[in-house]
Amino acid sequence: MGKQSSFHMTPDEFRMYGHALVDWIADYQQRVATLPVLSQVQPGEIRAMLPPHPPTHGEPFADILADIDRVILPGVTHWQSPNFFAYFPANVSGPSILGELLSAGLGVQGMLWITSPACTELETHTLDWLVEMLALPEKFKSTSTGGGVIQDSASSATLTALLAARERATNFAINRAGGTGKLVAYATSQTHSSLEKAMMIAGLGRDNLRLIDVDETYAMRADALADQIARDRAAGLTPIFVCASVGTTSSNAIDPLPAIGAICQSEQIWLHVDAAMAGTAALCPEFRWIHAGLEYADSYCFNPHKWMFTNFDCDAFFVADRTALINTLSILPEYLRNEATKSGAVIDYRDWQIPLGRRFRALKLWFVIRHYGVEGLQFHVRQHVQMAQQFAEWVRASDAFELAAPVPLNLVCFRHKGGDAINQRIMERINRSGDLFFTHTKLDGKLTLRMSIGQTHTQLEHVQRAWARIQAEAQAIQGRDEVI
Amino acid sequence: MGKQSSFHMTPDEFRMYGHALVDWIADYQQRVATLPVLSQVQPGEIRAMLPPHPPTHGEPFADILADIDRVILPGVTHWQSPNFFAYFPANVSGPSILGELLSAGLGVQGMLWITSPACTELETHTLDWLVEMLALPEKFKSTSTGGGVIQDSASSATLTALLAARERATNFAINRAGGTGKLVAYATSQTHSSLEKAMMIAGLGRDNLRLIDVDETYAMRADALADQIARDRAAGLTPIFVCASVGTTSSNAIDPLPAIGAICQSEQIWLHVDAAMAGTAALCPEFRWIHAGLEYADSYCFNPHKWMFTNFDCDAFFVADRTALINTLSILPEYLRNEATKSGAVIDYRDWQIPLGRRFRALKLWFVIRHYGVEGLQFHVRQHVQMAQQFAEWVRASDAFELAAPVPLNLVCFRHKGGDAINQRIMERINRSGDLFFTHTKLDGKLTLRMSIGQTHTQLEHVQRAWARIQAEAQAIQGRDEVI
Repeated sequence: MGKQSSFHMTPDEFRMYGHALVDWIADYQQRVATLPVLSQVQPGEIRAMLPPHPPTHGEPFADILADIDRVILPGVTHWQSPNFFAYFPANVSGPSILGELLSAGLGVQGMLWITSPACTELETHTLDWLVEMLALPEKFKSTSTGGGVIQDSASSATLTALLAARERATNFAINRAGGTGKLVAYATSQTHSSLEKAMMIAGLGRDNLRLIDVDETYAMRADALADQIARDRAAGLTPIFVCASVGTTSSNAIDPLPAIGAICQSEQIWLHVDAAMAGTAALCPEFRWIHAGLEYADSYCFNPHKWMFTNFDCDAFFVADRTALINTLSILPEYLRNEATKSGAVIDYRDWQIPLGRRFRALKLWFVIRHYGVEGLQFHVRQHVQMAQQFAEWVRASDAFELAAPVPLNLVCFRHKGGDAINQRIMERINRSGDLFFTHTKLDGKLTLRMSIGQTHTQLEHVQRAWARIQAEAQAIQGRDEVI
Repeated sequence: MGKQSSFHMTPDEFRMYGHALVDWIADYQQRVATLPVLSQVQPGEIRAMLPPHPPTHGEPFADILADIDRVILPGVTHWQSPNFFAYFPANVSGPSILGELLSAGLGVQGMLWITSPACTELETHTLDWLVEMLALPEKFKSTSTGGGVIQDSASSATLTALLAARERATNFAINRAGGTGKLVAYATSQTHSSLEKAMMIAGLGRDNLRLIDVDETYAMRADALADQIARDRAAGLTPIFVCASVGTTSSNAIDPLPAIGAICQSEQIWLHVDAAMAGTAALCPEFRWIHAGLEYADSYCFNPHKWMFTNFDCDAFFVADRTALINTLSILPEYLRNEATKSGAVIDYRDWQIPLGRRFRALKLWFVIRHYGVEGLQFHVRQHVQMAQQFAEWVRASDAFELAAPVPLNLVCFRHKGGDAINQRIMERINRSGDLFFTHTKLDGKLTLRMSIGQTHTQLEHVQRAWARIQAEAQAIQGRDEVI
């Protein structure tokens, strides 16, 4: 028997299995609504189905594809189900999936302009488009003093902004010599946990993150911010960074950017605005009020991978002054030197992010924007907001439930009036059933249920069914309690 | 006219365009060898082909697909060409591309076990497989005290390791209160630039990174390391971290892990081993000598996305003590609390990395391992090493060229004996021609050419043609110089 001369999949095999997998995904889209949303497996159940040792010999690809249904699917929590109302949407779409496929097929590294000019230039261009689509300040455009870059997540965007702020405030002294424990940053108890993590990563220390009081809408109190900055300066500390949220994770609270921004400007503090989910709403002129005051921001991010039909990872991160960012993160070893970089005429995105390597993520964003057009994106975002407002109406009209926070956009925070225990039981029983999946937070110390509405295929019927299911579960629990 | 009720791509449209794109990629694989490897465009040329404003109305998807050839392809540097010998391989494969496609189609978030148990458990399992496949120390397995996780890049793995080292050394004091400027780390001038960047990001300062002398093979001198540690301790500093390279970026130099490890053990310093490209060689028993001494390491990483036919991003990062890592990076806000996390029976990978979100990257790794089997991967890695050794033989036998460093595996560092200028001209002229693409570094202050051999479809004929081309170019330049 002759020895095998190649183990690679041939282009014809790729064609065959690729078509099969595309069909599998199309079928999945059509049946995902019928699958239990929250995976029903116990810890270890998926691993137990996998062979303990890696295969010595290659296996037929048809067997591998068959295992998607047998091994993988039971362990999937279906984020793409129209009955998924947990966390945040993470809605994907056909054009976005195909953009990821093309990116994988080209297999390019976009760390430098020269390593694939299209990877860099399409990214710069689509991010400039986003500035226009969301009516963000002009300074965030690459044609002005700033520019945009795709980060993997808002966590990384926040960290990157914090680092640039740290270095701008210290004339690059921390990059050179390390931290001092004297720099402080500001947010609220409602700010995403990634900021606390970023403070730790950046060597600034979580004790140097000040949590400013919030008002009754869970938004930052600008007067409390000003007071805290004054106290810190009096104590010999240096305020360097404020993270304001446009749409907090817990309740979609919107921090008052005009007042916060004015303080940051006069105090010369870097203002980062995190609009991870809510930013997408600014596609529609009627929701652009959420960005009032954004002209004060030094950096801004929102995640097309949350609510703009684009696959994770795609966080759109903008800075007003790209030089501050590049000077913070640039390192140029000999093996990356090249004429294009030396000329200064190109962007090398490795200097705009934590890792060196990067894939061609702008393709999916480009596909999404072109497929939907601005009007298509607006249409679906409006639909999501309308559904959430409808849900909020039902809660308001109910005797048993109440709203727990304002509902500016597509997230409804609500609770049963019977206290934490019943809310916990409603959520756990429904989630365990697989009928829908929603999650919780705490507001004012009380357990609060969250309906996050924005999956690609979520329609009013799914939201109606969810509300009916929640009401019925509450009644069932109360009925049982009376009997017991 | 009625209003449109949905702008989404239907499953049938997805089927149609998905098949078309799969076919495009199969065709691309078949013709990529005929395309100029290094993109021939000038800065701004790709952007100039893009409309200045985003489209208001959606466009037919067929038009979008047509623009791949018109707009994108001229700006692509073809990393998947068999004539690509630059930087590092980044070789992809059919099964890996399909793994990415499935990941995109499922669109799950793997930040917590509960957000898709299969995403977490398949990752843990395939990384345990890798420990076995590379014969890494048992302690890196999840069934022991450690475990593996997929990071986006070796840069992020190094940063993550550095953070865990920082916190272990200070009893989590920097996480709490910020940096002190008193912690030092060790590497060599040949260590990847991401470590310097990590020192800056982590608030430790690049001045606190000690570059230890290298020997004639560009590997770290363990005696020099011991001396520097002693000097730093005498100066009141705290050594916390050594980064040893198994295969440096410039020349594939292999730091002496047994000697370095013994020092780290007695000095209680975290040892991180970066085998980004070279680690894959350990699939083959005859190359496992590169990992001698790895039993001393606290953490280790290699990149299946470099040389194991797996799409970026897929860095396999292992720690010996997962508790140190988790305690460094864990943050648990209310909205992420759940029963499975509380039980302690599951891994939540968000605590093993910088960002919160993560996609289902284990699928592509699983597809690759199962499609090739261990023997298939070994076969191709051996072929790459053989080709590089053959190229090195040609250089050794040549009058005009010389080797610039040992050639342990698949990277050949060489140069024309005529000095920097002619080497620079050879490289620039060939790269500009599009016939092949290779890059340079500096060793011993001299410009050095690098042939990195490991693309999926690179065969001996491509390497032969490259060598012939390089020789011919040198002769042409010299001929002209004599005439002028």
